[in-house]
Amino acid sequence: MIGLAGLPELEHGDDLGHLIAAAAARVGGLEPGDIVVVAQKAVSKVEGRVVHLEDVEPSALAAELAGADGDPRQVEVILQESAEIVRSRPPLVIAQTRHGFVCASAGVDASNAKGPGTLILLPVDPDRSAARLREEIERRTGVAPGVIVSDSFGRAWRQGTTDVALGIAGIAALRDLRGTRDSRGYELRSTLIAVADEIAGAAELVMGKAAGVPAAIVRGVRAPGDGRGVDLLMPRERDLFR
Amino acid sequence: MIGLAGLPELEHGDDLGHLIAAAAARVGGLEPGDIVVVAQKAVSKVEGRVVHLEDVEPSALAAELAGADGDPRQVEVILQESAEIVRSRPPLVIAQTRHGFVCASAGVDASNAKGPGTLILLPVDPDRSAARLREEIERRTGVAPGVIVSDSFGRAWRQGTTDVALGIAGIAALRDLRGTRDSRGYELRSTLIAVADEIAGAAELVMGKAAGVPAAIVRGVRAPGDGRGVDLLMPRERDLFR
Repeated sequence: MIGLAGLPELEHGDDLGHLIAAAAARVGGLEPGDIVVVAQKAVSKVEGRVVHLEDVEPSALAAELAGADGDPRQVEVILQESAEIVRSRPPLVIAQTRHGFVCASAGVDASNAKGPGTLILLPVDPDRSAARLREEIERRTGVAPGVIVSDSFGRAWRQGTTDVALGIAGIAALRDLRGTRDSRGYELRSTLIAVADEIAGAAELVMGKAAGVPAAIVRGVRAPGDGRGVDLLMPRERDLFR
Repeated sequence: MIGLAGLPELEHGDDLGHLIAAAAARVGGLEPGDIVVVAQKAVSKVEGRVVHLEDVEPSALAAELAGADGDPRQVEVILQESAEIVRSRPPLVIAQTRHGFVCASAGVDASNAKGPGTLILLPVDPDRSAARLREEIERRTGVAPGVIVSDSFGRAWRQGTTDVALGIAGIAALRDLRGTRDSRGYELRSTLIAVADEIAGAAELVMGKAAGVPAAIVRGVRAPGDGRGVDLLMPRERDLFR
């Protein structure tokens, strides 16, 4: 895992693929088979997925869910990003986004760098964002890396966040070992591994929220396939927790 | 990440610390700051946490929860390992273990290598298992690595498993960035990172269920601290999903 530092503060329309290719060149360049993990916030900024609280008119439901401690305008933006509220305890909202991700605040995050009153939303289509970045990076470097657009999600029952894959291009989302046999010849069961989430989490170890490292190269992990971030969503009919 | 292969099929009473030290020596040895991740199944086998179905008398509740497709004896073992059933859809049981972990089957797993009819339970105290391994490895090598006892857990709302930390010794469980500032001077919020879970997931990428690699060395990750696996459990009063 190699952190990619030195990217500038990102603005709507910036060529993120070019900036990542340049950062990768400073650490020796990309190699075939490399996976580039990019923080969702970086992708959302260049895609203009930014909202200013002063432009938001909160609904009555937003005011109710915000409670005494929350900002109704921020909750209003969360509601607009949500397909369904899964749980709420004011001012906390766990929602299913329109993509199908279940996460805190429907992925809506306050922006530190953009200043107070600025919110960053998830990309409209993280898989498309990942595919576009893969193309841009290939055009610049000649190498088409796997790409993961990652975000920090909390988990039911466990403390702390781990980074997971929202958008994927050029690698597998899941490694399916069902039907394969282990080293002693026994068939493996219940062995669908969320390999893209594990790669996203591994990359977080060198990215870090405080360090200004919004991307990383993961080298030496084989995850061949053509997965999508939405492959990692539990189908509704199998979901015991909604 | 360096997978540690070549360990024998493990039996109750085997000196796992010695076997890991020997495997590490074959790949150049341990370095100060290394973290050793060991699969829970390996730890449970040497600790004798093995049950044979033929010795189990199922209760009426176990028969009910097993449904038509499950084995009531296996569900009986799951119930004995459980403090609480969180969800059930026969034959699937999501339970809180007596340690506090919420996971499928209370962590009870069929053993491939031990043959049909054999179940492996979670260690009685995974933090103590990790601490003991750390001591054993230090005695053999002179290096006291961080140790994580890992297991593959499913997640609410997401497909596939990722490996997480059940037991921890010599490293942090969580990285708490609350109150710290990012590279631009803005205070970070909601930034409690489950770093031990991310390390466990990263190690899974080189361990692999099918490959006969029950342990790995993770090198170059700084996670100073003295965390415990139970630090990663969401306190009941803050848990929105039980």
